[in-house]
Amino acid sequence: MSRGILAVVSGFSGAGKGTVMKALLEQHPGYALSISATTRKPREGEADGREYFFKTREEFEELIRTDALIEYAQYVENYYGTPRDYVERQLENGRDVILEIEMQGAMKVKEKLPSALLVFITPPSAAELKRRLVGRGTESIHVIESRLSRASEEAVYMEQYDYIVVNDRLEDCVQTVHNIIQSEKHRRERSPEVIAQMKQDLKQFQKGE
Amino acid sequence: MSRGILAVVSGFSGAGKGTVMKALLEQHPGYALSISATTRKPREGEADGREYFFKTREEFEELIRTDALIEYAQYVENYYGTPRDYVERQLENGRDVILEIEMQGAMKVKEKLPSALLVFITPPSAAELKRRLVGRGTESIHVIESRLSRASEEAVYMEQYDYIVVNDRLEDCVQTVHNIIQSEKHRRERSPEVIAQMKQDLKQFQKGE
Repeated sequence: MSRGILAVVSGFSGAGKGTVMKALLEQHPGYALSISATTRKPREGEADGREYFFKTREEFEELIRTDALIEYAQYVENYYGTPRDYVERQLENGRDVILEIEMQGAMKVKEKLPSALLVFITPPSAAELKRRLVGRGTESIHVIESRLSRASEEAVYMEQYDYIVVNDRLEDCVQTVHNIIQSEKHRRERSPEVIAQMKQDLKQFQKGE
Repeated sequence: MSRGILAVVSGFSGAGKGTVMKALLEQHPGYALSISATTRKPREGEADGREYFFKTREEFEELIRTDALIEYAQYVENYYGTPRDYVERQLENGRDVILEIEMQGAMKVKEKLPSALLVFITPPSAAELKRRLVGRGTESIHVIESRLSRASEEAVYMEQYDYIVVNDRLEDCVQTVHNIIQSEKHRRERSPEVIAQMKQDLKQFQKGE
């Protein structure tokens, strides 16, 4: 069985990537969603190993020390990180893993796992990004402005991603992300066994043998 | 309108790429098939500008001299080549162009047009390649052996292609080639305008402005 692909998906807050990811996983249950470890307390209805791997601060720092996390970051007083072991096991079982993560984390993943596939989801325009953030109706103008300001800083990261997908129509975007991950399996760099096997097998037909 | 992609498709003789190309173009009429120029005489039913651009030897050598061919080769006493002008016009009109060509020609195309996408179609195994060649029932054992011997020499070229597609089931192979070409449009290297536009547009939201 061939190894799965780790697809790291990022985008500006408000790009709609949460909705894209949800639809992708519903339509293609073969994908495994990477589960983060965190030191924050479980909320009502959250289960260990489903929403998060819940850890104590000591446990989390032990994961850091033993290089058991592909990446981690601290927000406010809590740690969040991606356990390497879970991702590795899924990939070895031939499952493609989706890791939805912000951009600095994505850069760390690419550094540690160069075969990771980086996909950036962007709204069609900055005006549309603003419209979507305002349209949610759940955030204050202050929060919206701070998200747009952050997006303007984050845009530079787009150049580090392997693929840029414009999220115009949801269904198209989901299909495109799926096709990108599946097409990537056929890239020559990911097919060394196919090539080696074919070269080896064809030797029997060489002239003069 | 964004520029089309030039997809160069090659494979061992007997890999079934002719059948794959035919099905691909039937199912997706948006693709333009590159038309070769040749000095060989038109056969009954062949039309200039449809099967080939038919040229005199003098005309063809003028195309060579003026660098009007992306690649060319001589077989027996005739020239065959890919006119640059036709391909360029299709790409500029936003159409993706399929160029089915043998491997040395494909290498020349990649050299002249580095943005060309190289797709290699291979049967699942050498044994299957032999089965398909024998199964045609149209070729002598001598011809089959010479094709297999050629395939064993050609296998080294697989490493120069961007994508390797195993042609196991025809329908899967056609869909995969189509998805690869369409996914490739979203590669970051092919999306500089999307990134530049987004960075530019987001500047208005920078803090302190």
